[in-house]
Order: sequence, then structure tokens, then C-alpha cells
Amino acid sequence: VGNHVVVRNIERAEPASVEKLERAGVATVHEAAGRSGLLDPTIRPVIAGTRVAGTAVTVASHPGDNLMVHLAVECLRTGDVLVVTTTSASTDGMIGELLAISMSAHGARGAVTQAGVRDVAELREMRFPVWSRAISAQGTVKMSPGSVNVPVVCGGQLVNPGDVIVADDDGVVCVPRVTAAATADAAMRRIDRESDMRARLADGQLGADLYNLRGRAADLGIEYIDAVVDR
Amino acid sequence: VGNHVVVRNIERAEPASVEKLERAGVATVHEAAGRSGLLDPTIRPVIAGTRVAGTAVTVASHPGDNLMVHLAVECLRTGDVLVVTTTSASTDGMIGELLAISMSAHGARGAVTQAGVRDVAELREMRFPVWSRAISAQGTVKMSPGSVNVPVVCGGQLVNPGDVIVADDDGVVCVPRVTAAATADAAMRRIDRESDMRARLADGQLGADLYNLRGRAADLGIEYIDAVVDR
Amino acid sequence: VGNHVVVRNIERAEPASVEKLERAGVATVHEAAGRSGLLDPTIRPVIAGTRVAGTAVTVASHPGDNLMVHLAVECLRTGDVLVVTTTSASTDGMIGELLAISMSAHGARGAVTQAGVRDVAELREMRFPVWSRAISAQGTVKMSPGSVNVPVVCGGQLVNPGDVIVADDDGVVCVPRVTAAATADAAMRRIDRESDMRARLADGQLGADLYNLRGRAADLGIEYIDAVVDR
Amino acid sequence: VGNHVVVRNIERAEPASVEKLERAGVATVHEAAGRSGLLDPTIRPVIAGTRVAGTAVTVASHPGDNLMVHLAVECLRTGDVLVVTTTSASTDGMIGELLAISMSAHGARGAVTQAGVRDVAELREMRFPVWSRAISAQGTVKMSPGSVNVPVVCGGQLVNPGDVIVADDDGVVCVPRVTAAATADAAMRRIDRESDMRARLADGQLGADLYNLRGRAADLGIEYIDAVVDR
Amino acid sequence: VGNHVVVRNIERAEPASVEKLERAGVATVHEAAGRSGLLDPTIRPVIAGTRVAGTAVTVASHPGDNLMVHLAVECLRTGDVLVVTTTSASTDGMIGELLAISMSAHGARGAVTQAGVRDVAELREMRFPVWSRAISAQGTVKMSPGSVNVPVVCGGQLVNPGDVIVADDDGVVCVPRVTAAATADAAMRRIDRESDMRARLADGQLGADLYNLRGRAADLGIEYIDAVVDR
Amino acid sequence: VGNHVVVRNIERAEPASVEKLERAGVATVHEAAGRSGLLDPTIRPVIAGTRVAGTAVTVASHPGDNLMVHLAVECLRTGDVLVVTTTSASTDGMIGELLAISMSAHGARGAVTQAGVRDVAELREMRFPVWSRAISAQGTVKMSPGSVNVPVVCGGQLVNPGDVIVADDDGVVCVPRVTAAATADAAMRRIDRESDMRARLADGQLGADLYNLRGRAADLGIEYIDAVVDR
Repeated sequence: VGNHVVVRNIERAEPASVEKLERAGVATVHEAAGRSGLLDPTIRPVIAGTRVAGTAVTVASHPGDNLMVHLAVECLRTGDVLVVTTTSASTDGMIGELLAISMSAHGARGAVTQAGVRDVAELREMRFPVWSRAISAQGTVKMSPGSVNVPVVCGGQLVNPGDVIVADDDGVVCVPRVTAAATADAAMRRIDRESDMRARLADGQLGADLYNLRGRAADLGIEYIDAVVDR
Repeated sequence: VGNHVVVRNIERAEPASVEKLERAGVATVHEAAGRSGLLDPTIRPVIAGTRVAGTAVTVASHPGDNLMVHLAVECLRTGDVLVVTTTSASTDGMIGELLAISMSAHGARGAVTQAGVRDVAELREMRFPVWSRAISAQGTVKMSPGSVNVPVVCGGQLVNPGDVIVADDDGVVCVPRVTAAATADAAMRRIDRESDMRARLADGQLGADLYNLRGRAADLGIEYIDAVVDR
Repeated sequence: VGNHVVVRNIERAEPASVEKLERAGVATVHEAAGRSGLLDPTIRPVIAGTRVAGTAVTVASHPGDNLMVHLAVECLRTGDVLVVTTTSASTDGMIGELLAISMSAHGARGAVTQAGVRDVAELREMRFPVWSRAISAQGTVKMSPGSVNVPVVCGGQLVNPGDVIVADDDGVVCVPRVTAAATADAAMRRIDRESDMRARLADGQLGADLYNLRGRAADLGIEYIDAVVDR
Repeated sequence: VGNHVVVRNIERAEPASVEKLERAGVATVHEAAGRSGLLDPTIRPVIAGTRVAGTAVTVASHPGDNLMVHLAVECLRTGDVLVVTTTSASTDGMIGELLAISMSAHGARGAVTQAGVRDVAELREMRFPVWSRAISAQGTVKMSPGSVNVPVVCGGQLVNPGDVIVADDDGVVCVPRVTAAATADAAMRRIDRESDMRARLADGQLGADLYNLRGRAADLGIEYIDAVVDR
Repeated sequence: VGNHVVVRNIERAEPASVEKLERAGVATVHEAAGRSGLLDPTIRPVIAGTRVAGTAVTVASHPGDNLMVHLAVECLRTGDVLVVTTTSASTDGMIGELLAISMSAHGARGAVTQAGVRDVAELREMRFPVWSRAISAQGTVKMSPGSVNVPVVCGGQLVNPGDVIVADDDGVVCVPRVTAAATADAAMRRIDRESDMRARLADGQLGADLYNLRGRAADLGIEYIDAVVDR
Repeated sequence: VGNHVVVRNIERAEPASVEKLERAGVATVHEAAGRSGLLDPTIRPVIAGTRVAGTAVTVASHPGDNLMVHLAVECLRTGDVLVVTTTSASTDGMIGELLAISMSAHGARGAVTQAGVRDVAELREMRFPVWSRAISAQGTVKMSPGSVNVPVVCGGQLVNPGDVIVADDDGVVCVPRVTAAATADAAMRRIDRESDMRARLADGQLGADLYNLRGRAADLGIEYIDAVVDR
């Protein structure tokens, strides 16, 4: 097998797990996964107030070139999320309205890219959610090779094709396919626990007590003083 | 007194001054304070269209650790704004929904952090305003000591506990407690003056005339020419 | 002619071209111009969902000083867009509510700046669109000379006075005055072509086929494989 | 197996391959590996003019915490290079003189970190080469868990324990252990080819001819013109 | 007292303390001060391999304007270090050869600035050490007011006039005047302790044992495993 | 003329002017040019301690693609400096040892790029000076068109082919060809003036007096006070 490949078929996580992970959202999933998998916070939603979860179809592109994004479309299945990286940092608009229409027609639920996106007004109107590092109208060429459905690093995080991507206003998290079911269950349990905690805190109880932090504070030598003399 | 302290009680500015400063907003307060006190523009509102003013309760935390934020909650009084810094640059999510519920229950009007925030959809829904350098779901630990209600630098600006924080769509400004009353009055006077200026400018009068800038332009050697030959 | 000048009169593009360019929007205009003219993506709209096109009236200012912006107002004609740069990087608020009122009174349709803007709630309310690198309440002085209607570099792009500026959610593009008519026509043709493409893609046809990319992929040595052995 | 592990033993690449990769240097190895594996250019040498190659022993740490770096030392073997990442961005000084002494005593040839390093004068004097994103004296704690010898992402690049790290003035490249021998041989061949090319270019022959670029230029529609009318 | 002042005389730390702090260097002083006082790592030495300690004479300037640096020179005494900030971020060259000559003539041992510096070849030749955020030839004006010897924030750190500045290849640390003697003594003790530790580590003893980290690792649930199955 | 061109012949500035500008250096030339022409400070020398001046031969490339750099070599004449930009931000290594050998063989004195450079150890050894935004071994392709000897923006500065580039440790400045002679003479005069100023300042005279700043300080309302009460 050569340097550049398009892998047509990948294994996907169970839809039931994906559905639970979407319900839980990025912050809860990230915690349930042992505080792992979060893409770095430079990757932000283009459309506020959306949440999506789906299977990663990955694309590795040359910077300023979206040839491989076009070749990836026929690898999409219903419920997938396209994850697009470039071999070096780029803000060029790798995804725009036309590609979004095409991806939607092939079942994609959204896209994540370490590079840029354009036609954001149109994306908003058609409600195709994208998370990206930049918004840029800078056009790309279709000249240089890359790969589809190989492991990529996006936002400082390893994403394997078939992993589960969860994205919302808090960012994007990647859950490995093989741990998706366990993470989804842990996320559901975490939601249950938090509901009780939410009520206690709203009632004025202190995290210092609920999380047993006073002993640790004392061990760490943190001193409580009543007031400082005014400067 | 050791390295790490929690100061339970601080002196606060007069509520009347805080109320005036909130009415004036960040840009006017910053001008009224002699163009001082503005946190740098990397600190942005998580919820657009909100304005808040309150007394700073300050937190100095280890990066990636929100132990001290939890310990700060019981130091809050109605009308306070929590100001959270880390000892070195960090984007991790120091504040989320649970802490926001807890802070609200103890009277906080909002929070400002040089680090990150998460659960932003929930914060928006509960209308708890936060200004931060990043939005990140990255979870934190509760392992390392820090301090509450000591002087901190946030966004390149010194914030002493008890200072007045004003925050809106233009950013965040800090007014020292001891000058809060004078700054509030100066801000009120500035608002009066600007109302007349606003009418004149809307009428087409020029700032060049209203601010007497033509003489200065001449002194600086600025030449007026009718047109350049087309390139 | 000395170092610092205010050029009162400039040649402007035909209103018909400006109107077409506004209709086309930033991404289409940038493509129609041979993928040229885009300001870098750090320059973002302050008010989402607006689009504007107009003639560039340019301002070169000292950082932290908006004297020249005030002097530029009387050079504005109906349909102009003010383009403000500083001689070195600055985020200070060069434009605020009062200047926006004044610019509006003199016919400006909006403003673009490589520096900062303030009073953004007020700008939103009066619907005066601004694109900027930063939002900052930091006040400026009126002490140092600069120029009006000289060539400037804004967002890494040369802008000559009289060029056409198009700005929307995708960013800002500059079209040279002398090629504005040709670019406007090319943009209109492009919109026609894209409408057919949009329909085909929505129907599930692939860009790989519509853009004839399969031959190129083969030439580049890209291999298709059915599946990888699971990790 | 839990969330946090220290893997004591890893498979290493053949010393002969490592030696060839060191001889070739970063730029040649990166090309020989099909232009893959380069860590992003924010990671720079602390000591100019050094080159090193060795086996990656990887460390995943909490930000601001170097506990895991200390635990990694006993996993080092002669010829290893420590690769240290943090779970979120940090510039704190994870490695200093004392750790460098300890790593040297256990055979390490150098270190690479996405975070910071300190005591750089001492490192220079003892000639212990480090590549890092930052130089910072900011001290770290030893409070939070992480892992040793698990896959990490450093500088946007996946590094598995046992991979070969090559680092010099051009940056840092990671070669997967299983392809190290083939990449080393490809690098040697490339060096041979470049030596002939170097002579031809020094003689004034043109890359346009030697790489057969004139036909491509014509195909791409690049026009040659003798001169432009002076502006 | 108005908005802008020049304070002619300040209290300085004991020369003996300054001398000890210089001997200890930035990393050791920062640790001895309870890991406090470090300016952020964007502030780097212009001349590698120098170390300096001295009393802070502080300058708050308008961006792009070095009027106040000129006014500060007559406030310098032998052994001082000038600390220059701007009211908002700027990279312009605030200090160059002529100012360095002037500062030297008045006893300054070096300078630190959050902005830029120029004439760096000349500074290197005259061995006048400067730490700065940028190197930039961009010239400044002398038009806008500021202050000398007021508290400033430089590199995210509060610096009061009279505090001790220590700067070397690891960066810059600020020690409050009132704690300078205690910090200097703590630094000396730390150097003694480290000398023993250095010998033990060079001998192959492990930090894991010397710092008693094995128990903590166990408490944190870190598991040791012999090897992972090869990927 | 189409979108992409190679202009073979350009007008160059007088060698005598170039020689004077080189003698003066970046900071002095920038001042002599009315504080204009400086490329932004992110563009730094790869080899410290070198200075070069020459005629700009400009290259506009697609990001990650150095085809046009190869095509530019035959446009070089003795004494030229290659100036390479990309249509959007990129750090990829556009220039390396082989291209440097080729450029040298065709008379180039150095190169400036807004993108990256590699083989820096070899460049240092062959003493071919390059100024760049990044050092990166990331390889480029030769697939996409661009232009040679058209106006480009590099480091935020307009560079026309034939302009004079001066580069040293302080950065890079561009002097328009048509003003090169006048700027060179102004730079020579400035050097004479500074020599007297240097002597006076070394003697302890104050810039406050030599530049007549005391009156301005008074006009600006700057107050002198003897001392502040200790904090």
C-alpha cells in the first residue's frame, strides 16, 4: 500500500452508544472518558447552539487543497462526521456550501476541521454544523494527494476513522470506537450523579463540603484569615 | 501568614457607585478612570449582550486545578464577581455549570477568568454571565494550593479584592475600590457630555471641528491635497 | 508633498459594479477575482449576519491614536467603507459609537479595521457594521499624524483608496477599482454556474465526478482500498 | 488496566537505523518518510547546532506538574529521547538541570517537550539537548497522575513509545518504529541523490530544468513576460 | 496628584540581597519566592548568556511612544533595571542604542520591556542586556503622557518601583522589595540543598526515591505494567 | 495577461543607493524613510549577526508549494534578494539548502519569506542569510501556479519588484525604488547627527534636555513628585 490511500469502508461504533454520547454532550463525555479526547479549544463551532455526534470519517489534506475532501464524500454513511486536517497549519476554507450540500446528501451530520470554513451564512441557513479553527473565504485548489480514513491528529488529538466525534458549544471530543459503549454508559451515570449535586449546590451547600476539600486544603497548608489590613 | 491564604472578609465599594458604574458600561468607565483598568481584549464575554458590575472576589489557582474556586464560594456576598487567574497561562475549563449554580446561590453576579470556561450552553440558559480567555471542556483537578482574595493580575491588569469589576460586550474593566465613587461620578458626567456630542455628530458636524483638531493637524504638518493622479 | 497627507477626492468604482459585488458576497467575489484580495481571517465581523460593499476610504494611523479617523470623516461620500490601519499592530478601539454616528451622517456604509473597535452593543443597535481584528474598549489619543486616502495594507492585503470592499460573515475582500466591473461580471456568471452544481450535489452526484477528479487521483498515485484490518 | 500507567519496557528500533536517521537529519528524514512525521515548528531547539536521534520514551503529564517525568526516568535506556506532553497547553518548565542530570545518568540523549524547559544555561553547559515550545522558569508541582510509555500527541504529531525521534536545528521528526529501517535506507539514498543535484545547482543549472518544471508551468497557464511598464 | 506622574525617588532593596539574588538566578529565585513573581515566557533575552539583577525603575508608556522612557533616565541610580510597559500591547522598538547609552551613563544595568527593542547588534556589542517581547525597528514618537515609578504590570506580573528584577536566559522574575532579603536567603539555602541532590542524581539515584514519589504514585492509582502488546 | 505571470526583467535601484542603505542598517533606514517600510517583527533572521541589502525579486506562491521559487531563480541578478510570500499564512519550508545554492549561483545575496525555511544548519555554514517567519522542515510540493515579480505583501508591507530590501538583526525594511536614493542620503545624514548625540548621551546629558521634552511634559500635565509614601 502506497503513501496515499482512500479506505472505503470502516468499522463504526454502535448507534446506541453514539446516541447516548450525543445526549451527554462534550463536557460530560470528556469527563466520562477519564478527561481524555478533547480537541484543543482553538476549534470552535461556526453555528452556536448545536450539538452533534457521529462516526469520524477522516481526511488528511495538503494545506490549501481540498481534493481529498471531495474524494471522501463517497465514503460517508448516514450519521458520519467528517474530520479534516492539513499536513501543516492552514486557515484556508476547506469546506463551503457546495461541499456541505454534497456531504448532507451522503448522510453526514456535520464536519470538524483544523483548517478553515467558508459560506458560513449559507451553512447556518441549511443548519449544517461545522467546527473549525478559522472562518476564511480563501479558496483552495485540487492538486495534491492526501488520504481518507487514516489516523489523523486534529486539534492535538488522535482521531482514528470510526471513532465517535461529539461536538457542541463546548468544543469537540473524540471517543475511541472500542471504548465508546463503556464511555457512553459512564456518561449516563455521571448525568445521574450530577443531578443530585446540582440540587444541593442550588440549595447553597458548598463544594468544599460536598467534595471533601477542607481536609485537603489543610494538608496543603492553606490558611484561612479573617481579613487583611486595607491597602 | 504562609504562602497560600483564603481571606474571608474584604472591604467592598459602595453599592451606589457599583450601580452607577454598571449603568455607564466598560468603555465609559475606562475613559472616566483616565483610560486605565481595562483587561486585555483576549478576555471576551461567553454570553453576548450582558452587562454586569460587582465587587471582585479574587482567586489565584494552579493551572488545570480549580480547588481554589471551590474554596472561594463561601467568601462570596451578594453582588460579587469572581475573578479567577492561574499562575501560568491555561485554557482549561475552570468554571462550569455546577460551580455557576453554586456561585449564584451565594450571590455572585458573574465571573471573569483568564483561563477557560465550559458548559456554556447551560450558562447561557441560566443567564450566568462569564468573561473568559477560552471556552474549553478540559476538566481540572483539585490537588494544588492557591489563594483567595489576594491581589491578582488578570488580563494584564492588577485586580485587588474589593475592586469593582464592570463587564459587558466591550470587555472587562477594573476600578480600584478607593476611587470607585469618583470614577462613577466622572462616568455619569461623561455620559451627559456625550449626549450633546452625539446629537451634533448625527447632524453632520465634524469631530475635526468639535474637538478642535484642525490646528493640531496643521502643527503636525499634515497636508491636504485635492486628489492624487490615478495609479 | 510631505510625509502625511489627507487626499480629499478619490476616484470610485461604478455603483453598478459595487451593487453586484455586494450581491455576490465575499467568497464568490474572491473566487471571481482569481482567488485574490482576501484580507486575512483574523479580521472578523462585529455584527454577525450583515453584508456590505462600498468604496474604500483609507486611513493610516499611529497605533493607539485615532486622530486620522476623525480627519477622514469629511472625505466620506455615500456608499463608502472606511478602512483603518495602524503603522504597527494594535488592538486599541479606533472606532466607537460617536465615530460611527459621524461616519453614518456622512454616508459611510461600514468600516474595516486591522485594530480594535468598541461600543459594540451600540454599533449593533444602530446597525453600523464593522469588521475588526479585536474588540477593545481601550481608548485612543489624538496626538500623532498619519494619512487619509493613501495605499494601505490591511489584513495582509493592499487596499488602494477607491477600491471596492466587500464584507460579510466570511470576512473581507478588496477588489481593485480598475477590475471591479470585470470581477462583478465574473461573480454573476459564477453564481449562475453554482446554482446548477448545487442541484446536482443535492441530488447525490459526487464532486469527484462533476469536477473530473478521479483521473487526477489516479495520476497522483492515490490508492483505493476496501478496508483496513481493525487496529 | 486503569487510566494511568507506567509501561516499563518497550520495543525499540534497531540501533543501526537510528544511527542512519541521525546522520540524515530532520529535513531529509521527513522527506524520506513521504513528508510525514514532522512536529510543528513551534517546537524549537534550546541549544542551537545540535542533532540527536533516539528511541521515544513518552510521558503524558497534567499541565504544571512533572511528577510523571520523574517516574519516567527509570524507564530510560541508553540512547532514548524523552518526549513530554501535557494534557492541555502549558509553557511551564517541565524539565530543568536536575532532571537533565538524572536523565543523562540513565542514558537519555535528549528530550522533547510541548511545554517548557528551564535552567537553559546549565543545559547548554552540560550539553544536554532539549527541544521545547517555551523556555520558562515557572516551577511545577508533583501532585497529579499521568502515564509513561503510552501513545501521545506532541507538536500535532502522534508519537508511540519506541518510535525514533530525530531532532536538530530544523525541528523534530518522529519515525514509527516499524518503518524506521526502510525510512533510514530511503534517507541514505536521498542523500546520495542530493549530492549530484547540489553540484549541478552550484554550477548554475536551474531547478526549472532539473525538475522538469517548465512543462508544468505551461500547463498551469503561467505566462512569461519580458517586463512590466514601470509603476 | 494627577493622572501622570514622575516619581523621582524610590526606596531600593539592600545591595547585598540584590547580589545574592543575581548569584542565584531566575529559576532558583522563583522557587525560593514560593514559585511566584515570574514574568511570562514571551519576554526573552536579546543577548543570550547574560544575567543581571537590579532595582526596578518602572515606566508606563502609551503604545508607540517612548517619551516616558526618556523622562525616566534621570530617575536611574547605579544598579537599576528599567522596566517599560505600554498601556496596550505593542511591539514597537521602545529602546535602542541611544537610550541604552544614556541609561548606561546613568547607572542602569539593563532593561526589561513588554514591548520591543531595536539596534540589537549595537546593544550586543556594548553588552547592555535587554529582555523584551519583540525585536522591532519600528520607531516611536514622543507625544503622549505616561508615568515613571508607578506600579506596572509587565509580562502578567505586578512590578512595583523598588522591587528587585532578576533576569537571565530563563526569563525575568520580580521579587518585592520588602521580601527581597528573605527570598535571597532562601535562594542561598536552596542552592546548598540542590548541590547534594545534583550529586545523587548524577550517581543514578532516582527522583522517584529521593522525592518520595512512589507512595504518591500508588495513592493516585498509577499502575506499573511490564510491557504492552506491540501495536 | 493572465492571472499568473513571471516577469523576467525589472528595473533596479542604483547600486550606490543600495550600498549606502546597507551601511545604514534597518533601524536607521526605517527612520530615514519617515518611519515607513518595516516588515512586521515576526520575520526574524535565521543567522544572527548578518546584514544585507539588495533588490527585491518577488514571488507569490500557493501555501505549501515552492514551484514559483524555482521559477524565480532565473530572474535573479547579482545583488538581488528574493522575497517569497504565500497567498495565505503558511510556515512550510519554502527555501532550503538546494535552493540557496541555486540562488547563490545566480547572484542572490539572501532571501526573505513570510513562510518557513529549512536546512538552517547548512544555510549557516554556507553563510546564505534568510529572514523568515518560521523554521520548518515541512516539505513543499511543486503543483500550483503563482507569480514572479508582481507586487506582494510580505510581513504586512507592500513590496514591489525592484524595491530595495535591507535586512539585519533588527528585521527587514523595504524602500521603494523611486525613493531609494533620497532615503539613502537621508540615512547618511542621520548617521552623522546620531554620532554627536551618542557622545552627548554617553557624557550623561539627558534626552529630556537634548530633545526639548521638558516643555512637552509640562504641557501634557505630567507632574514630578519627589517620592511616594512607601506601600
